[in-house]
Amino acid sequence: MDIITSTSNDKVKHVTMLVNNAKARRKEGLFAVEGIRIASEIPENMLKECFVSEGFAAEHEISEIFGYKTEPVIVSSAVFKKMSDTQNPQGILCVCGKNEETADDFLKERRSGKIRLLILEGIQDPGNLGTMIRTAEGAGFDAIIADENTVDVYNPKVTRSTMGSLFRVPVYYVNDLAALIDDIRQSSVTVYAAHLNGEKSYKDIRYGDRVAFLVGNEGAGLSDGISAKADELVKIPMQGKLESLNAAVAAALLMYSL
Amino acid sequence: MDIITSTSNDKVKHVTMLVNNAKARRKEGLFAVEGIRIASEIPENMLKECFVSEGFAAEHEISEIFGYKTEPVIVSSAVFKKMSDTQNPQGILCVCGKNEETADDFLKERRSGKIRLLILEGIQDPGNLGTMIRTAEGAGFDAIIADENTVDVYNPKVTRSTMGSLFRVPVYYVNDLAALIDDIRQSSVTVYAAHLNGEKSYKDIRYGDRVAFLVGNEGAGLSDGISAKADELVKIPMQGKLESLNAAVAAALLMYSL
Repeated sequence: MDIITSTSNDKVKHVTMLVNNAKARRKEGLFAVEGIRIASEIPENMLKECFVSEGFAAEHEISEIFGYKTEPVIVSSAVFKKMSDTQNPQGILCVCGKNEETADDFLKERRSGKIRLLILEGIQDPGNLGTMIRTAEGAGFDAIIADENTVDVYNPKVTRSTMGSLFRVPVYYVNDLAALIDDIRQSSVTVYAAHLNGEKSYKDIRYGDRVAFLVGNEGAGLSDGISAKADELVKIPMQGKLESLNAAVAAALLMYSL
Repeated sequence: MDIITSTSNDKVKHVTMLVNNAKARRKEGLFAVEGIRIASEIPENMLKECFVSEGFAAEHEISEIFGYKTEPVIVSSAVFKKMSDTQNPQGILCVCGKNEETADDFLKERRSGKIRLLILEGIQDPGNLGTMIRTAEGAGFDAIIADENTVDVYNPKVTRSTMGSLFRVPVYYVNDLAALIDDIRQSSVTVYAAHLNGEKSYKDIRYGDRVAFLVGNEGAGLSDGISAKADELVKIPMQGKLESLNAAVAAALLMYSL
């Protein structure tokens, strides 16, 4: 059994870069996820390489975690700690291939029939994005589309908080969110923007089969330009002196209202 | 103008302790909050002392922030950085007195009439608790009651994520959550537990005027003992392969369903 004991090993350096660097993830079309729970959710066609610590390898039958055969790379505990993004690493870290499909590809396949989309502008908090992906799966949403100002979905903090949903709910980034909204409206999707100036409550709308919800940045909400692209502004009524709800909560209330 | 320039100043040491130490907060009945936005939400009767950095004092009229007169303690930037819990401190930190009312006091006043309560068991994530308090205000909930295993509401990470709601939604901690649930059920509050084994969906229940929702720990959910105390287990339907929703999302869906 070969064990990597040096942090200057090329494979180790490569993984460390994928964990820490969004640009590298983008360039290579790869990302890393950590922990036994999320590892067990990786589809076979997305798993590129699996790294485990020496201790983890001694205690686990790796192929049982995945449900399919895979040969892990074994590293010393010290090396694993260096690769890991967490303070108390569990000892398993996997490199996965990104879903390379684009929003356009996806939308072309879904020109008709029921569709439910969550569209995000400038979401900054990794935990919020992760929670939105998780909730989107629970609410039966088909995909999430985000602008380039939204935090990277393959950021380790995001992948952790999705609890595996990122392998089941596709997230697409687009350069021009306004153009995308025009496109989907032309294919009969009704776009509702969560907005403090909305007149109707989200509970009072009769939603059709083809629906998208637009949710904006945690502090600033949706930009005026993007809000103006929606078919309708909707509000989530608030009592008290609150200025807004948490963005992931707002998205959840909207998605679960369908 | 006196400026504190030493971190060994007694006032500075006291505040640092309140920021970092839950036991000290409990013992003294005090807590600290940081930032201009939350400072502006502190009711006059709760503000005990306000600390500002030299730079902040030069740029702001302190009494305008609060809407009432207060004399800040001015400290050097280096001292402020030491007191602060954040990486880029805004320069204002306030010591507040806790709400010393107990859950019993509160419930005695609310023996009849409409009441809406969120009851928490073992919530660990500060961001989740903060988000729940914020959502509770928006949904018009009267109070939150938590067991001793729930994270301290006066933890700086919680206070930040409440966006000021912690001054408007009372949070009570109780030793014996099972006994408390017995008490409120005897005063005609119907208690619904969010539970994967729930038969009815939360959307299909006809809620009365006196309602409490029980939400459990992020990983383990509600304990069997506490679940058994509820009038009814309710489920939040989930599609896909999800095992559970984020706890703050679950609480939001329940609270906003009323």
